[in-house]
Amino acid sequence: GALGGLGLGLWRRQQQAAVAASKEDEAEKKEEEELRQRFMAPPVSGMRELRRRRRELRSRMELLIMETQGEVCRALAALDPGASFVVDTWERKEGGGGISCVLQDGEVFEKAGVNVSVVSGLLSEEAARQMRSRGKSLKAKDGKLPFCAMGVSSVIHPKNPHVPTMHFNYRYFEIEEADGTKQWWFGGGTDLTPTYLNEEDAVHFHKTLKEACDKHDLKLYPKYKKWCDDYFYIKHRGERRGIGGIFFDDMDSPSKEEVFQFVKSCAKAVVPCYIPIVKRHCHDSFTPEEKLWQQLRRGRYVEFNLVYDRGTKFGLLTPGSRIESILMSLPLTARWEYMHTPPESSKEAEILEVLRNPKDWVH
Amino acid sequence: GALGGLGLGLWRRQQQAAVAASKEDEAEKKEEEELRQRFMAPPVSGMRELRRRRRELRSRMELLIMETQGEVCRALAALDPGASFVVDTWERKEGGGGISCVLQDGEVFEKAGVNVSVVSGLLSEEAARQMRSRGKSLKAKDGKLPFCAMGVSSVIHPKNPHVPTMHFNYRYFEIEEADGTKQWWFGGGTDLTPTYLNEEDAVHFHKTLKEACDKHDLKLYPKYKKWCDDYFYIKHRGERRGIGGIFFDDMDSPSKEEVFQFVKSCAKAVVPCYIPIVKRHCHDSFTPEEKLWQQLRRGRYVEFNLVYDRGTKFGLLTPGSRIESILMSLPLTARWEYMHTPPESSKEAEILEVLRNPKDWVH
Repeated sequence: GALGGLGLGLWRRQQQAAVAASKEDEAEKKEEEELRQRFMAPPVSGMRELRRRRRELRSRMELLIMETQGEVCRALAALDPGASFVVDTWERKEGGGGISCVLQDGEVFEKAGVNVSVVSGLLSEEAARQMRSRGKSLKAKDGKLPFCAMGVSSVIHPKNPHVPTMHFNYRYFEIEEADGTKQWWFGGGTDLTPTYLNEEDAVHFHKTLKEACDKHDLKLYPKYKKWCDDYFYIKHRGERRGIGGIFFDDMDSPSKEEVFQFVKSCAKAVVPCYIPIVKRHCHDSFTPEEKLWQQLRRGRYVEFNLVYDRGTKFGLLTPGSRIESILMSLPLTARWEYMHTPPESSKEAEILEVLRNPKDWVH
Repeated sequence: GALGGLGLGLWRRQQQAAVAASKEDEAEKKEEEELRQRFMAPPVSGMRELRRRRRELRSRMELLIMETQGEVCRALAALDPGASFVVDTWERKEGGGGISCVLQDGEVFEKAGVNVSVVSGLLSEEAARQMRSRGKSLKAKDGKLPFCAMGVSSVIHPKNPHVPTMHFNYRYFEIEEADGTKQWWFGGGTDLTPTYLNEEDAVHFHKTLKEACDKHDLKLYPKYKKWCDDYFYIKHRGERRGIGGIFFDDMDSPSKEEVFQFVKSCAKAVVPCYIPIVKRHCHDSFTPEEKLWQQLRRGRYVEFNLVYDRGTKFGLLTPGSRIESILMSLPLTARWEYMHTPPESSKEAEILEVLRNPKDWVH
């Protein structure tokens, strides 16, 4: 009786615990499944591994970049129903891998790429030299510097010359030095490259970014807006690539958590700052001359990316990089004419003026 | 009588001398005029100055590059009678200048540029760093390195995908070191970038270059052919830009005169190695697919020039450079498709194979 009762009680409690655990498991699996469905592919580190170390910043950042990739791809695909994203997952034999999503030759988009990469390994000599040249100390152990880098990056080139090109990139970097200490930093930004100037669009774009920054610190937007104008400078042309946005690098204060929250706000602002602009102009009519000007501007885009862009250079220098994912940023087509100069007071001269002398779009 | 006779004799001799001098002058002027007519514009240093220091190598090299520019432009223009070269002469405020000849959007040529530049001034910090990195000592005086650089360079992009792109460049460089000694060297090369492989063309091209080299030293062609294959390597693609030709740099032996004579032979070989190929194929029929493949190859051309080419990099780094003349080498149009891979055993795969594994075309 009593023993049997006790036995039954124990059995019941065990059974209840098992049911609870399996319910918890199920809830977790369901949540994981929901998360997974918002991603374009399984994450590089695996869902199980990410769950296991869910409190680590590396894991939270990987989930954020995966979510951002999904969000942006869905928003773009919704505007270009005839086309669809090709999803390529790839591995890097030196460690890590990535997921490249590309939509090519659609109705609305000429080429739209959203790339996630999570790579680790040893920093190449040349890449270390580049980092040192911007002030990092990086004490190597036997010449070796283990690193881990992850990020989401994207370039959207629309067909219509009245819809601007947009680029964003949010990334996290860790390097282990000789004494075991880890250097870490975040970098990123979102910027717009119109073929023709539309002030309303420029204001909307910058205002949305400013709001994302202002939630964290009022100093961030002005600082990163200027950094963006400085970074995307095509020195040999004396012009910027576009009308800017925000750009930052080597961000490692006030704290890992706070910087992560800031990066999260920026990543969440990508869709609201760009998609309304695409919707507003993707059915605008345009002339062959406007298309030609767009193609010449695409040429400048190529010049910036191949000659100056730090991310592209880092990628080309890193052994085992996936070149197709790095050069996804290049437009489908571009043009170079010798000595092309738009007439004074033309719409082409208007955008050039802003590229030569950047403006403040919000105050 | 006698005095008068003497006076008359003196006067006659003076008169005869004056007539002779003026005849010599006239002959010189006529010769100068003939030379001048073969040039696309007056030379940067001026005909009078070049005549004054006609024994100096700098002057002879300037005349050679001017003559080469004229020769090539006339040969190209003869094949594209509807189009004509725009000739721009420009000055560099830091010293020197140049002459850019460009034919754009012709019947046969999409973009053909032949550029002469004769510049002097102080080497930029970055340019000096680049030169030191390839082994030059360059002892500067108060951080200053006076230099003089001159050359002719050209890229010809034809419309028809069965006519290859051709590039050549011949240049002379002088740097004055702190102790007043002058370092000097020649560099140059001629190379071919076909969209599709035509073995007969490849053999003709290489054979013509080999003959030019062999007149001077049998070792030169094999050495400079290999150097060309190595130099035009697009590392991130694992491909060469084209099927090569010859390339050399830092050539400063056996003597200034002998190197100059070699460079002259190479410059004189440009027209015979390329023009017959253009003539043979400029009326070949082609499909839209062949045009598309050409555009993708043009993209690779842009990648090489902007990421790796030493001349382009040097130009972009040198303050006061004429950007339009440097980037004249870029094609009118180019294309980048994500993950484009030609089918096995296709004509596209055939040229890729040769770009990945260079061949010996002449023995």
